[in-house]
Amino acid sequence: MVVELISVGTELLLGNIVNTNAQFLAEKCALLGLSMYHQTVVGDNKERLAQCIRTALGRADVLILTGGLGPTEDDLTKEVCAEVMGFPLKEDPHTRERIQEYFNNSVYKKITENNWKQAMVPEGAKVLDNHNGTAPGLILEKDETSAILLPGPPNELYPLFYEQVYPYLQSLCPEKIISRMVKICGCGESMVEEKILDLIDSQTNPTIATYAKTGEVHLRVTAKAPNADAAEKLIKPVVKELKRRFGSNVYSVKEDETLEMAVVRLLKKHELTVTTAESCTGGLLAGRIVNVPGASEVFREGFITYSNKAKRKILDVNKSTLKKYGAVSKETAKEMAAGGAFAADADICIAITGLAGPDGGTEEKPVGLVYMACYLAGNVTVEKYQFKGNRNKVREQSVVRSLDFLRRTVLEYYGKE
Amino acid sequence: MVVELISVGTELLLGNIVNTNAQFLAEKCALLGLSMYHQTVVGDNKERLAQCIRTALGRADVLILTGGLGPTEDDLTKEVCAEVMGFPLKEDPHTRERIQEYFNNSVYKKITENNWKQAMVPEGAKVLDNHNGTAPGLILEKDETSAILLPGPPNELYPLFYEQVYPYLQSLCPEKIISRMVKICGCGESMVEEKILDLIDSQTNPTIATYAKTGEVHLRVTAKAPNADAAEKLIKPVVKELKRRFGSNVYSVKEDETLEMAVVRLLKKHELTVTTAESCTGGLLAGRIVNVPGASEVFREGFITYSNKAKRKILDVNKSTLKKYGAVSKETAKEMAAGGAFAADADICIAITGLAGPDGGTEEKPVGLVYMACYLAGNVTVEKYQFKGNRNKVREQSVVRSLDFLRRTVLEYYGKE
Repeated sequence: MVVELISVGTELLLGNIVNTNAQFLAEKCALLGLSMYHQTVVGDNKERLAQCIRTALGRADVLILTGGLGPTEDDLTKEVCAEVMGFPLKEDPHTRERIQEYFNNSVYKKITENNWKQAMVPEGAKVLDNHNGTAPGLILEKDETSAILLPGPPNELYPLFYEQVYPYLQSLCPEKIISRMVKICGCGESMVEEKILDLIDSQTNPTIATYAKTGEVHLRVTAKAPNADAAEKLIKPVVKELKRRFGSNVYSVKEDETLEMAVVRLLKKHELTVTTAESCTGGLLAGRIVNVPGASEVFREGFITYSNKAKRKILDVNKSTLKKYGAVSKETAKEMAAGGAFAADADICIAITGLAGPDGGTEEKPVGLVYMACYLAGNVTVEKYQFKGNRNKVREQSVVRSLDFLRRTVLEYYGKE
Repeated sequence: MVVELISVGTELLLGNIVNTNAQFLAEKCALLGLSMYHQTVVGDNKERLAQCIRTALGRADVLILTGGLGPTEDDLTKEVCAEVMGFPLKEDPHTRERIQEYFNNSVYKKITENNWKQAMVPEGAKVLDNHNGTAPGLILEKDETSAILLPGPPNELYPLFYEQVYPYLQSLCPEKIISRMVKICGCGESMVEEKILDLIDSQTNPTIATYAKTGEVHLRVTAKAPNADAAEKLIKPVVKELKRRFGSNVYSVKEDETLEMAVVRLLKKHELTVTTAESCTGGLLAGRIVNVPGASEVFREGFITYSNKAKRKILDVNKSTLKKYGAVSKETAKEMAAGGAFAADADICIAITGLAGPDGGTEEKPVGLVYMACYLAGNVTVEKYQFKGNRNKVREQSVVRSLDFLRRTVLEYYGKE
């Protein structure tokens, strides 16, 4: 069963809005096990829209069209789709009544003549009542193919989809699709791919897909089966094998768990508190940690020590250390971590000092050089990184690597989870 | 001149990511006055990708393809596009060198064999050096048509586009299009639109487009003329009128100046230093300030005081204040700001305390309630906000509003810029 999306709207072609509807619909279709090979964006233009619909009808079983159902003259989706599929338009008394009712309850009291255009419906179409707007959703069926027409505004599209389109699509799918995420940090994308080349090459069901994020790689394992249990059974050994291959580089197998959530979970498990002593990242690491609901159990305070003076005053870094080795050095990082843990009376302190650029780099200490230190139970370990990219990228990578560093330090001390 | 976008990636078809690249590129093409009639998303599949490229070559003058330039086996964009257009692939020594260099400076030291695939280039193609990744951008030209191939990750795509693709596209356009940004904060989108309704209704050349961002509204004034001078002349009076209407709500008219950059510029001008005392935002405000190159002149240190104890210890907030009014109160915010300025010996301190949720809200103090205080020259002013949305959204809005608060406080004290 192949589904294809057609998003209609000049505002998408002009880049005025981001096509979040396409992401929403694609994700839901994937969850239903529907295959999607194409998405198209086309403007409110009769000929081009008709051509896109004809092309899609020739290669997909289900078309989902969004946008272009409004009351104005340039809204053409319904008219063009009905014409291409050979359905005449006819007024639907039920929809006319709904539109009247909608305006009775609305702040925009006055119905304009063009609103009645929205009560015109392709003959034989299923009408999907829209509780958040005047344009009804529509399902047109012909020769084993269906076209689903939905309004563009997300606040109308989402409820219509969940209530009426999802069940319709589900009824078309014979198989159940289930997927699991394996989230990895501390390995580059190509290294991850090389380690699982044999699995990818031999994959049929389940399949493994790779997604690279800043400092992370996510693997999605997806299986198809007649029922959920059978799909789960197919997935389990693959996830187990991936966990075996990547060991402690796997920080989570939960769909919704971010790296910072995994870190906070680990700290909670061992009843540890953490503090942060940030220079070049300027609070971004703490910001990530505090992003986790309930972070207050493990994180109470953090320091942004951007100047040397602040490093000395707040973190008790030695003047001589700063003078001899500089602010971006392993010695300073170490003293920052030890001093931060003491100042906050925390079990762990992660310190970051580096050159985010664009200026300030030297041959010896180029832009992108970052030292991180982690204090835990009287010990300080330090790591050196040389990141690529602009100021933002250096800082983002520093934050991700520091979260991973913190995670690894705890795992090494307390043993694997 | 018609341009068409082809986004390549199964992750888009599966709905794993939102196609923000398409919006970015569409917006830039519109600014250049290029027409766009179609955008297509297709997966990493040889036949389907080739078909999409052939279709696009038949109806557009310029193709922009994004994604599928990675080192893995399913990255096919370059190979398929070169084949369809009839260019053999050949190793580019310059790119090979760049990849080697990239890995030399990277934390992922090990080059895997598949990385060298990225040094293969269609014969005669323009190679666009990618400073943030290993895949170069490419421009293939044939029979008045060009295909521009760009890497998918936005942090690689954006700089490549600005530095090398934008000038290339510009050279293809006969008319000169120039635009100016007027960036506004502290006004909602509908209020902004209402204030310029007359200008928008009467616009032809220049045009005014509105873009809403978190806590900000950007107005883009665009003029078209045979040369840059004539376009500038058309734009000037409109920008002047917008500045008159929005007064000090206009924080910048520079394309690349962010709100935090405008704030740092203002602080530098008055030789002021600032510190931050953050609770619910957990370092994000400081992180935004430090994101500005050269922020060290105005920002030396900041405090993340997430717990009450930290507020007392670091910022000297009274125990009785916390007990009587609670951590999320105007009284606590005020003491945080005054205490922060003292602790950091800074001219200004901006303090934020609020309930980001999802838990912890009460009827009296609901989730989204945020107090901000700003200390300057012995005075503390405080503002109360009730934000909508999830934890992240509340924190993001808090950061933007606090930057604006800081800006307004300085402007009021020192007079308008």
